[in-house]
Amino acid sequence: MALERGRSAQRAPIHEQLEQALREGIRSGRLPAGSRLPSSRSLAARLQVSRGVVSEAYGQLAAEGYLTKRQGAPVRVSPAMRSAEQHAPAQSLAPSHAYDLRPSLPDLAGFPRDRWLRSLRAALRESPISAIGYPDPRGTPQLREALGDYLARARGAATDPERILICTGFTQGLSLLCRAFAAQGISAIALEEPGWHAHRLIVEQCGLKVLPIAVDREGIDVDELARSDASVAIVTPSHQFPTGVTLSPRRRAALIEWAQAADGLIIEDDYDGELRFEGGAIGALQGLAPERVVYAGSASKRLAPGMRLGWLLAPSWTSWSLSVAKAVEDAGSETIGQLALADFIARGELDRHLRRMRSVYQRRRAALLGALRRLMPAAKPTGSPCGLFEPVSLPGGVDEHALLAAAAAEGLGLEGLALHRFHDREPAHPGLVLGYGALSEPAIERAIHLMAETFAHLDVRETGGRLARR
Amino acid sequence: MALERGRSAQRAPIHEQLEQALREGIRSGRLPAGSRLPSSRSLAARLQVSRGVVSEAYGQLAAEGYLTKRQGAPVRVSPAMRSAEQHAPAQSLAPSHAYDLRPSLPDLAGFPRDRWLRSLRAALRESPISAIGYPDPRGTPQLREALGDYLARARGAATDPERILICTGFTQGLSLLCRAFAAQGISAIALEEPGWHAHRLIVEQCGLKVLPIAVDREGIDVDELARSDASVAIVTPSHQFPTGVTLSPRRRAALIEWAQAADGLIIEDDYDGELRFEGGAIGALQGLAPERVVYAGSASKRLAPGMRLGWLLAPSWTSWSLSVAKAVEDAGSETIGQLALADFIARGELDRHLRRMRSVYQRRRAALLGALRRLMPAAKPTGSPCGLFEPVSLPGGVDEHALLAAAAAEGLGLEGLALHRFHDREPAHPGLVLGYGALSEPAIERAIHLMAETFAHLDVRETGGRLARR
Repeated sequence: MALERGRSAQRAPIHEQLEQALREGIRSGRLPAGSRLPSSRSLAARLQVSRGVVSEAYGQLAAEGYLTKRQGAPVRVSPAMRSAEQHAPAQSLAPSHAYDLRPSLPDLAGFPRDRWLRSLRAALRESPISAIGYPDPRGTPQLREALGDYLARARGAATDPERILICTGFTQGLSLLCRAFAAQGISAIALEEPGWHAHRLIVEQCGLKVLPIAVDREGIDVDELARSDASVAIVTPSHQFPTGVTLSPRRRAALIEWAQAADGLIIEDDYDGELRFEGGAIGALQGLAPERVVYAGSASKRLAPGMRLGWLLAPSWTSWSLSVAKAVEDAGSETIGQLALADFIARGELDRHLRRMRSVYQRRRAALLGALRRLMPAAKPTGSPCGLFEPVSLPGGVDEHALLAAAAAEGLGLEGLALHRFHDREPAHPGLVLGYGALSEPAIERAIHLMAETFAHLDVRETGGRLARR
Repeated sequence: MALERGRSAQRAPIHEQLEQALREGIRSGRLPAGSRLPSSRSLAARLQVSRGVVSEAYGQLAAEGYLTKRQGAPVRVSPAMRSAEQHAPAQSLAPSHAYDLRPSLPDLAGFPRDRWLRSLRAALRESPISAIGYPDPRGTPQLREALGDYLARARGAATDPERILICTGFTQGLSLLCRAFAAQGISAIALEEPGWHAHRLIVEQCGLKVLPIAVDREGIDVDELARSDASVAIVTPSHQFPTGVTLSPRRRAALIEWAQAADGLIIEDDYDGELRFEGGAIGALQGLAPERVVYAGSASKRLAPGMRLGWLLAPSWTSWSLSVAKAVEDAGSETIGQLALADFIARGELDRHLRRMRSVYQRRRAALLGALRRLMPAAKPTGSPCGLFEPVSLPGGVDEHALLAAAAAEGLGLEGLALHRFHDREPAHPGLVLGYGALSEPAIERAIHLMAETFAHLDVRETGGRLARR
């Protein structure tokens, strides 16, 4: 057992090092349940530390239940420690592939860890102690203030910190909204078709029906929406997922007219609005009609999805009931990350990060398009110069599911368009949604190479030369 | 404008300092919307920095929308900045009192900030980058593993990391459970009466009815529970809130028999099980019947409620559906705090903190009881030597609500027993639930002094000498 002596701030006190070594010995089974430990005197002599150090460590481990200690009897490893070794190590449900072209992730390696840590440190050291008490269920005032400023500036939103609600990602925000609608007697919500599959899952888990509304080259078909029974619609106006189109100016106006005429509400899922590579940002729809639009954003594509920080900017007539629902649902979101994000925004770090990421993603998209052109020209890109993904169409008759399965078997993660379609599960227009956000340019090249090979092999194996279709 | 030069790692680069100074000037209105800025050449000369520094700062602030910059024209503060100044600063909903004897808070000043920061740093620096991607919705494997080990050891729970679900506090855990019950056709849940008022709010928000079951000096009345229609009961066996009683061994056995006979489920809210000052800890009920009990705990009383970290340990037959519900509800909880807590537990810091807190809280409880005896003997303590609160009974006829209102007017936060009663809103047995966790011993003394004065004054004012009752 090697205990490190020294004055470094990083080094734990000797008794803690000893405790840690004993804990690890017991957990690993090297010190089995029931086994006898040396007396504090003899262990102290062996380790050349004071006897008090050993006594303190033994006392702590007895209090934790690792050791049993009785007056006059030798210290032993607790018999209860047996059970802790029985189970297998905890598993993760997240699938992993050698190459992952699925579209959900931003560049995690580019996450500014040190700058985020600086903001975490500021949050912990500079906030009043009440900051780690029970929070304002809407979110910390500091973050609502910083986001109000940021969203007005970067997204052209009409902001008010009192109407911002901080959630566990966009996902919880939509869950809270859907349950509020259900409580108001709304039974169905209009979604884009194709549209992000998770919108559908969330709406349905809240007991609401989905009304799929077609998306064309201008975005959601507002005439079809107006003919439906919907009074609430979820849209992705800046960058439609998964088609990649931007809602046209004409349709933006029509959508707001629909909401006013139908006494309806638009939920604007602005997951990547700042990530446009050409021309200026397109302002949030919410800025045009703040009482008809719930703006929703999150840190997931902008920083990292593991932060699980999302925000709703709701019309005044609905923000209070959402805040009450959030208060009862989970008593508010975690505060240290919120305070860190407020600091991070106030220092200009979010803007700086997004500016850097825009050029990173622009180069990655160029690498993806170049590799497709050279290696798999049958896959035609149909997206826009923004965000983290590129939709590609595949030749009619290609079996999307067979391609996904074959790719997964080769260690390549792919996502098909069918996942994001409500109707038409056997699609006439097969395609993929390729994510380039999380991969370096060489990795993109290799992944497309692997995809092209899988595609070619599938082609031959399945149909003997014709395009694959099961 | 003072820019600091230097090599310190803490100091930001010059261009960032300049950006920050300009941002603050614009936000505060010192640089009003539309106003003209000096050319980069003249500002660089004035600040004695290179022109590139100023150009970089101007470029960043233009990208952020603070400045407008056109070829050949002077740089100006964006006209859009006007709107950002219109709203009042963000408010907090959390009430604040000069002295707060409400029972919800642990000792926030004793939160081990530096040790938590060390664990946050370890989480950010030592985890693979995938740790900040989309999480396993059940929680990170590292935290489920560490908690599995901890709960077996410290609470005698029958643990399996695959059946642990990390939630946004206990509160979200109960929300998820209640919605799962509602989906299974369960319409009502048994709660302790009196019992924590938030249990009731959460159950009702999920559309379930509350069946209040009496609590006596042995804990929940299991005979009354058996006569009810309930198949699910929420209990606080280690330390009943708000009466402070511990479920007797006889009742523990009867409760488990009930669950087996009624094909029922027990939700064990173990909010402060480790905080017993005398004798050993009382093991979790869950350890006795893991397929009939959902164990629920959180960091709120153990560390700080602002962390919003809670955990369910669910029977095998229900853990999967809970995990799916959590995945759709919010896609999983924030990961950096989870990884930090796993590190914190593995280093023995949680045990060490709880051991320290036990003696702090024991001294604070003694101070509270002593001050009551000396200053307000009419208030009779009825609790147990554990946790963060002491229930006290008041003489019959005292108007609890009037006392609370009068105390709040004096800057003293109090919580009455009536809040935690389902029936009997005009209680025959008035009382208070006094929290001593967050106050130093001198502050407890002063708060009880203020309470006694308020009480005496209320007494006279309201009834001319008799005990107050409106």
